[in-house]
Formats: sequence, structure tokens, C-alpha cells
Amino acid sequence: MKRIVLFGTGNVATHLFEAFNDSPNFKIVQVYNHDIKSLKKFEQKISVTTDLSNLKEADIYLLALKDDVLEEVSLAIPTTGALVVHTSGAVGMGVLKKFERTGVFYPLQTFSKNKKVDFTSIPLCIEANLTSDKEVLFKMASEISEKVFEISSEQRKSIHLAAVFVSNFVNLMYTEGDNICQQNNVPFEILHPLIQETASKILNMSPMDAQTGPAKRKDQQVINSHLGMLSEDQKEIYSLLTKSIQNLHGKEL
Amino acid sequence: MKRIVLFGTGNVATHLFEAFNDSPNFKIVQVYNHDIKSLKKFEQKISVTTDLSNLKEADIYLLALKDDVLEEVSLAIPTTGALVVHTSGAVGMGVLKKFERTGVFYPLQTFSKNKKVDFTSIPLCIEANLTSDKEVLFKMASEISEKVFEISSEQRKSIHLAAVFVSNFVNLMYTEGDNICQQNNVPFEILHPLIQETASKILNMSPMDAQTGPAKRKDQQVINSHLGMLSEDQKEIYSLLTKSIQNLHGKEL
Repeated sequence: MKRIVLFGTGNVATHLFEAFNDSPNFKIVQVYNHDIKSLKKFEQKISVTTDLSNLKEADIYLLALKDDVLEEVSLAIPTTGALVVHTSGAVGMGVLKKFERTGVFYPLQTFSKNKKVDFTSIPLCIEANLTSDKEVLFKMASEISEKVFEISSEQRKSIHLAAVFVSNFVNLMYTEGDNICQQNNVPFEILHPLIQETASKILNMSPMDAQTGPAKRKDQQVINSHLGMLSEDQKEIYSLLTKSIQNLHGKEL
Repeated sequence: MKRIVLFGTGNVATHLFEAFNDSPNFKIVQVYNHDIKSLKKFEQKISVTTDLSNLKEADIYLLALKDDVLEEVSLAIPTTGALVVHTSGAVGMGVLKKFERTGVFYPLQTFSKNKKVDFTSIPLCIEANLTSDKEVLFKMASEISEKVFEISSEQRKSIHLAAVFVSNFVNLMYTEGDNICQQNNVPFEILHPLIQETASKILNMSPMDAQTGPAKRKDQQVINSHLGMLSEDQKEIYSLLTKSIQNLHGKEL
């Protein structure tokens, strides 16, 4: 059995804590955070600490911390022979260079505080500098997910970038749609089936083939009428994305 | 029983034809299109014509035509006492002003040629100038869908505009994500669960609350590193959408 010290109490840390709750082979033995308040929800279940000189002995240090504190915290952790792993999509493995045995354990999903997550279908991207540690992480990832990928730091950065487009920017499009509905007294719910269908369509066809709409059709009359209904900020987005669709699909016409 | 003449042979027309196949109360009696070839797939099942002076007697003319030919075709249809209805999200009911009894029957969904559609959960937006015809369209819509909304031409235009954001522009984001994956030898499938979760999240929370990512966190280090990985066109999109997210969420910080 491998013992894990979990660093962090945010969404990713909390979901990982729950996911490993029933694992017989990987056991979280302690949760660290700099802020005592955020440890409250863990202290009934597990040993907690705010003191980096008070870490329990463990096989794996799992750093589920915000990108911008990763370097600072990892430099403050006492030198250890344990495998030290972070969960970030955007940060290379190099940030952990202080340690001999390092790795990455990146769950490719968007986590919300109050929404339970089934890890089984969440892709886990793993990386390690030692082959033996790669095997440890592979086993650890397989414990909670059916989709484990060995991904280099370079590839992981590109996945994280792609994720910004298909998740963060997509959610901005939902927000703009919601705003337009609200301004016209239409319930946003009317768009829910379209949103779900648009997302499930690309499971079976490439997004390039799935493209529809006035931009792709070059229907300038509809495009002009739409532009007339938008605020300046929305107009800028509409124009740029319409131009992009037409650039991408221009050759087809 | 109401008899329907269906105009058009595209995605919407084809899916509506199939949806009304089993209806005991609304029966498609003829399909019109200007192009004889496109009528091929219907002629085994139903009377077809390319001649507007040869239309069958019917209670409803259902114009499932492209936006840009709607006016031309409707002006060429002989004057009739039938209820004349189009299926467009972007065009007002006024385009049918030649006729006494007019309406709109707009299915709010993205249709693909080879993907079967279950109309039951597709919102149908109806409108008519006469109250009695509104009731006819309500009954007709309820025959194939559980979600029927009475929506004015103005509201419908705004829904159509919102749909461009939550479907067409969202699909462009998927395309950019796919391109980034391809350029880095990562399978796009790795993003499928994230895409599905992002779409299903907003069924239970507002997209404004669901926003995550470096733009919202104002994580300039990650944003800069992302910009360095993009083509000029992608950079323009990334910068503008990042700015928009920060404008929308600026007050929260």
C-alpha cells in the first residue's frame, strides 16, 4: 500500500480525496494546506497540518495546488525521497526540480465545488522522470479512472491550451447566449437541448464537419441583422468568430 | 386530420417528414422542391412536385426552405386559403405577408443529414397571426415534441442569435481545440469528457457561475504561455475572449 500526503483543499484536491477514499492500494494519510480554515472539512476524517516541517512519512506527495503557488510551496517542502507529483495542466514537471523523483498527475476535467464527479471516465494524464515511478502513477491513476494517458509536459501544455478553447471559451459563449436570452425575456432553458446536441455531435464526427450556421453559409443578410442586435463587445466577438469560421471553411465553397 | 404540403428537401424538411410519418392528425400529402433530383428520396413514399402550380390541396403549407429563398418561393406560391408557415429562426413572419393566414414553426436544434433526431425534446417555437391558427400549430407541434413555446418574431430572432453563440461559435471552439491537439499529436478524444461536462454543467448552474480558467483567474503567466503557442488567427481569438471573460467577471475580484 502506498501512502499519500495530499497538498491543497480546492476542487481538485477535494475530488481526489474522495476518489481515493475506497482505494485499498493508495491511501491518503494527511492533508496539508497553509490555511487552517480550509482544512476544517478534512480534520474529522484524516490527519491535517499547516506546517511543512510536520509532514507525515509517505510514498507520494500529491500537490493539488493552484498553479501560481506550486513553485513557492514545492521549494518550501523539506527534501524527501518520496515521489513528488503535481496536478496542473499548465505547469511543466520542471517546477519540482528540487526533488529527485518527480511526476505529474493531471485530471483533464472541469471541477465544481458542489458537483460530485465520477472519475471513472475522466482522462488522467501522467508523467514521471523515472520509469518505475511512471508505473506507480499508472497504477495509481488506474485505481480511479479507466482512461490513463502517458503525456509529456509539452503535450500536456497543448492539451491544457485546447481545454481553454473547448471549455472556458465555450462557457463564455454560453454566457453570451444566456445574456441575449435575458435581454429578450426568453428562458435560457430553451437552448439547453441545442447545447447538449452540439456537444454530443462531435463525439461521432469532426467539429470541422459539424459546423453549421450563417457564418459557414456566408449568409450576409442574417449576419448583418445579428450584428444590429448586439452590444459593441458582443459585436467584436461575433465578427471575429464569423471571420474565423469563414477562413476555416472558405476552401469548401 | 390536417393535410400538409412540405416545401424543401434539406435537413429540417427531411427530419420533419420523418417526424410526422406516424402522426394520425397531421399528414404530409406532398413534397415540393425546385430541384427534381433532391425529391428522389421522397418519391417512393409520397407525391412530389417541382411545379408550384401543381400543389395539392392542403390545410398547411410548411416551408422548410433556406432563409435566402423563402421570400422568392413564397411570392411564387399561388394565393391560398391554407395556413402558410415557415421554419426559419432568423426570418420574421412578415416574409409571408402575401398570405392571409401565416405562422412560424421553428425547431430549435442543429440538424445533420445522417444523424437521426428525436423530436420529443426539441423545443418548437410557434407563432401565428390568427389565434385559431396558433392553436393548430400548437397541436401540430405537440404531436412531435413535448416542448412547445409561443414565441414572437422578435424573440425568435434573439433566440436564433443566441443559438449562433451557443452552437455555431461553440463548434468553432471545438474545431480550434481539435487543431491544437492534431498539431501536438494528442488524440482529440482526450477532450471529449471535458466537453460533455462543460455542456452538462450549465443545465444546473448559470454559465456565469460555471466559468473557470486562466482568464477568470487573471493568471497572466499561463495566458502569456498560451499566446506563445498559437497562430496569429488563434491568438486574436484567445486575446479577445480572454478580455471578454475578464470584463464580465472583473467586478467579482
